[in-house]
Amino acid sequence: MEITPGPLLRQINSPDDLKKLSKEQLHQVCDELRHYIIDVVSVHGGHFGASLGVVELSVALHYVFNTPYDQLVWDVGHQAYGHKILTGRRDNFHTNRKYNGLSGFPRRAESEYDSFGVGHSSTSISAALGMAMAAKYKGENRKSVAVIGDGALTAGLAFEGMNHAGVADADMLIVLNDNCMSIDQNVGALKEYLTDITTSQTYNKLKDDIWNALGRLPVGKRFTREMASKLEHSIKGFISKSSNLFEALKLRYFGPIDGHNITKLVDVLQDLKKIPGPKLLHILTVKGKGYSLAEQDQTKWHAPGLFDKITGEIYKKKFELPQPPKYQDVFGHTIIELAEKNKNIIGITPAMPSGSSLKFMMDKMPDRAFDVGICEQHAVTLSAGMATQGMKVFCNIYSSFMQRAYDQVVHDVAIQNLPVIFCLDRAGLVGEDGATHHGAYDIAYMRCIPNMIVSAPMNEAELRNLMYTAQLDTTKNPFTIRYPRGEGTMPEWRTEMTAIKIGTGRKLKDGQDIAILSLGHPGNFAATAIRDLRKDDIHPAHYDMRFAKPLDEAMLHEVFSRYNKIVTVEDGTVTGGFGSAVLEFMAAHHYKAEVKILGIPDIVIEHGTPKELQRDSGYDANAIADTVREMMKEKVKVTV
Amino acid sequence: MEITPGPLLRQINSPDDLKKLSKEQLHQVCDELRHYIIDVVSVHGGHFGASLGVVELSVALHYVFNTPYDQLVWDVGHQAYGHKILTGRRDNFHTNRKYNGLSGFPRRAESEYDSFGVGHSSTSISAALGMAMAAKYKGENRKSVAVIGDGALTAGLAFEGMNHAGVADADMLIVLNDNCMSIDQNVGALKEYLTDITTSQTYNKLKDDIWNALGRLPVGKRFTREMASKLEHSIKGFISKSSNLFEALKLRYFGPIDGHNITKLVDVLQDLKKIPGPKLLHILTVKGKGYSLAEQDQTKWHAPGLFDKITGEIYKKKFELPQPPKYQDVFGHTIIELAEKNKNIIGITPAMPSGSSLKFMMDKMPDRAFDVGICEQHAVTLSAGMATQGMKVFCNIYSSFMQRAYDQVVHDVAIQNLPVIFCLDRAGLVGEDGATHHGAYDIAYMRCIPNMIVSAPMNEAELRNLMYTAQLDTTKNPFTIRYPRGEGTMPEWRTEMTAIKIGTGRKLKDGQDIAILSLGHPGNFAATAIRDLRKDDIHPAHYDMRFAKPLDEAMLHEVFSRYNKIVTVEDGTVTGGFGSAVLEFMAAHHYKAEVKILGIPDIVIEHGTPKELQRDSGYDANAIADTVREMMKEKVKVTV
Repeated sequence: MEITPGPLLRQINSPDDLKKLSKEQLHQVCDELRHYIIDVVSVHGGHFGASLGVVELSVALHYVFNTPYDQLVWDVGHQAYGHKILTGRRDNFHTNRKYNGLSGFPRRAESEYDSFGVGHSSTSISAALGMAMAAKYKGENRKSVAVIGDGALTAGLAFEGMNHAGVADADMLIVLNDNCMSIDQNVGALKEYLTDITTSQTYNKLKDDIWNALGRLPVGKRFTREMASKLEHSIKGFISKSSNLFEALKLRYFGPIDGHNITKLVDVLQDLKKIPGPKLLHILTVKGKGYSLAEQDQTKWHAPGLFDKITGEIYKKKFELPQPPKYQDVFGHTIIELAEKNKNIIGITPAMPSGSSLKFMMDKMPDRAFDVGICEQHAVTLSAGMATQGMKVFCNIYSSFMQRAYDQVVHDVAIQNLPVIFCLDRAGLVGEDGATHHGAYDIAYMRCIPNMIVSAPMNEAELRNLMYTAQLDTTKNPFTIRYPRGEGTMPEWRTEMTAIKIGTGRKLKDGQDIAILSLGHPGNFAATAIRDLRKDDIHPAHYDMRFAKPLDEAMLHEVFSRYNKIVTVEDGTVTGGFGSAVLEFMAAHHYKAEVKILGIPDIVIEHGTPKELQRDSGYDANAIADTVREMMKEKVKVTV
Repeated sequence: MEITPGPLLRQINSPDDLKKLSKEQLHQVCDELRHYIIDVVSVHGGHFGASLGVVELSVALHYVFNTPYDQLVWDVGHQAYGHKILTGRRDNFHTNRKYNGLSGFPRRAESEYDSFGVGHSSTSISAALGMAMAAKYKGENRKSVAVIGDGALTAGLAFEGMNHAGVADADMLIVLNDNCMSIDQNVGALKEYLTDITTSQTYNKLKDDIWNALGRLPVGKRFTREMASKLEHSIKGFISKSSNLFEALKLRYFGPIDGHNITKLVDVLQDLKKIPGPKLLHILTVKGKGYSLAEQDQTKWHAPGLFDKITGEIYKKKFELPQPPKYQDVFGHTIIELAEKNKNIIGITPAMPSGSSLKFMMDKMPDRAFDVGICEQHAVTLSAGMATQGMKVFCNIYSSFMQRAYDQVVHDVAIQNLPVIFCLDRAGLVGEDGATHHGAYDIAYMRCIPNMIVSAPMNEAELRNLMYTAQLDTTKNPFTIRYPRGEGTMPEWRTEMTAIKIGTGRKLKDGQDIAILSLGHPGNFAATAIRDLRKDDIHPAHYDMRFAKPLDEAMLHEVFSRYNKIVTVEDGTVTGGFGSAVLEFMAAHHYKAEVKILGIPDIVIEHGTPKELQRDSGYDANAIADTVREMMKEKVKVTV
């Protein structure tokens, strides 16, 4: 289906074209841009609500600022669709998030208008400040703008950036896009504060009240001139210095203003462009603005998949047979099952209650499951604090976001050997979210930490058994369980849970000449490969190793004693991951086998479907089978 | 020398003993505790100023709270000497930071009074909140107290903790120990804010002024009753909701009060103990309080080493011959040399200007070198932002602190392949600071990131060459240079700098039968071992590999073609580090040698001198020599 942009949008091939329009025409540009986003996303998929919420802001920023000379940093970036469409990518926009297509996030390699690659939240202030400080040092009159949501503002990095920006004397603007949302409802004291200064009486109105009142103060008998002056002085100092959280951090605060009023936005941004130094503009927007269903259920419409834009029906695949559940849902239901029996279990998620399915437990056991906001560091150290009190905390964090709490894992959990359970969701190649979101490094970065257990289930039953094992009082170590986004393999997944001996794998199949050692879900790819190899009369053994750490040494002694060709398979980096652990075992025990490590190669993997990316990475079923065939042909070369 | 505690301190073997004293006697306890710290640290070394600053607070907290039932979390923890002395460790305190002695930081394994292990900053609020939430869930009337400095408060994790604490409805107290210092002077907007609310007119005084004035407002002609009521309403709402940064975050704010007034402290803490919910007490202290030299130069006296407590003379080792400089100073001088020629060079440190010696550049080029405070995440993303503008940023972070900015390295630098230069100071075993501060994991956690270059110099000249190479325009990748704390090997270190081809090592010595591949400074241990092995008629080859990534593949082909016994040596973890990289090469290229990996074992290493710890870890010169001897005895076992 051909999607046609409106008559004004059709002419906008760069912000220069936008700037040729009158301010009055911008209303229509916003309308057309909004409809274009709805048209494309309904048919091609992608993030939805966030970009609708910043249509006016996107237009206003490119209308007012001299992009790409001026630097525009979109925090997280899934709200940057309007920005992409306005900056020369309109006609390619239908390739968004597809293999070899546009990235779902700003990306420096994609456009000079994407001044900073994003994906994870809360980086924009620091990045824009770096740009502003560089401009200052170089004597350039370049402006830097960070657009950050109220959800992203909860992460410590954003606070660190503000704390520096306030004293750095560099020319930067922070636009706080306040819609009370992360993917789920935003949480925390800051959110309530923003609501406070927004509702009932706004900060500006209050300021006006006080100043007006002071200007009219009569000089009576008991209220002397001196007292009035003193009070005025106090209040002035008070308001300018500490009355507002942002001004406390030395950022000039403006707003809040309606982020859907394009004329007002343009006027205010034009004014702010002239004001030097660090400043923050607080705008109020509605996530999903202009598409009423999305306004009403903002979490559901964060990234709804394909839908009928007229009826609002979100298309779901229909299946004749029962399908395996998502690993996420298995986690979400299983933690409740476990928590019903073990009163010490607590669930923690940093801002991913829906994505992780911890929401099930939050609804059912609100005193035992918590969304702490976009605060991965806090989530981990909070879990550590709870663990000191005997709680069994399941801290569920996406693999790529766990990178944000690495020191907390090392310093607060592992060094103290506290038995916190890390469920690393979205481990492996996540698909359409691309480079910033792949869970590629966790096996490597977790495995090098002392005391840490690193495991991955091959299916739903294994996930349940690992979760069961992790919460036992006999388990004394921090325990990582990593699993991918999406479906497992078992439609009948409510299996009885049994304890697994930590550091033991499962022999799935004996074989001849060659063995495949797999970790986690890709074990299923290996199983497919093995079936496929029968026709070549090749019969690999298959071991689901289950733990990258500790390794099942007894099993590995068996493997290395019986096979001299070994393939390892994991959905993690081949640099320092599970395969390397197997090599370390081999070297330590003086074995001399041919070992081929399959996994995510040591390059940045862009977006596409998981299948496309696993194929390219060389660890899908075909790639495993090809590797085995190749190794069976090779003569072993021995240098000793 | 016998160090004798004063007559009251002598009787205090636990907080129970302290509680038996009258409030009036606490002055004397503080005096005695302060003198005891001075006596011990002057003779045995350790951190100094921080503990002197919280003598009164330490006494007051243990006097008022029911420790260890109540949970006391010291942020960072180098100020916890008084706490240790009061909690049964007085007579062992002279073993502080020594091999097999007390840890320099609170440590759960050491005492039930150490409720949370610390070392890195800014963890206390999250940890104490976890404890408080657990207590609430379990229905226990247990109090949780976090003691955090104004320096530690600048890190994002502390903000994340406060943002949650404000809405968590758990019973916890944050004591903000405000002394305007990190190790160096504290920086950032928050510091200025704290000074604002402390000086001239305090927050409480201001509140009083306003309320008093409002109470006395006359009702005049133009200032109606209605207007007064409206104003009062506005100001009330204003003060209660948003007047103070901490109250904006829904923490009840108390203070500031004098942190050296023990009576006042005890009174206030007793009051606060009765107030439920999250609250913050702001106390003002002087780092080094009670030892005037330490009060005057707080950075110098943060951890002065041994000194004469009467004269204040800090003892320095005296040498007859010129000594090699510290790697830190080589960095500090070399970055200036480079920056004088390359105008794009910028230096960044998160709160370690003295420790890293970036201070030299900050003094000489204040517009090009910045201390951003305890904000590792921000330091890295700021560097990334600057790099987009063509700046060559040397971001100097201690290895163990780099763990705090891991996602920023991955997401903001490496995925975008921005050529930021990471100088990882304190890499390897740091010695007396112990488990939390060892730079043990960086090779492993950096090596698994795409685009990243990972290098380590064996001496001063190599450090200079690596720094020179990293800043060249031809170097397009992020570039890690790791080096240890302390002295190198070259008294004449101001060598001419030359470019190194990235991913190339140095063959230091040909040999027979066996080769040693070393990375970084431990190459010197290998050289010593090789000299020692001559008497056994064993002659290992020696290669200084210089890069853990990319590996020098040409060199490794030479090594694996010529030697079938190989020892790798690094001062990093043996799990996933440089040695594993060599194994990956060997497997990929079908070599079959005996490889023994020496480095930091996969356990938590406690404190001691670097020499003691390197010996125990098995990679000092003796251990390398022993390993080589052992391997030369072994028959190679081949399973193929």
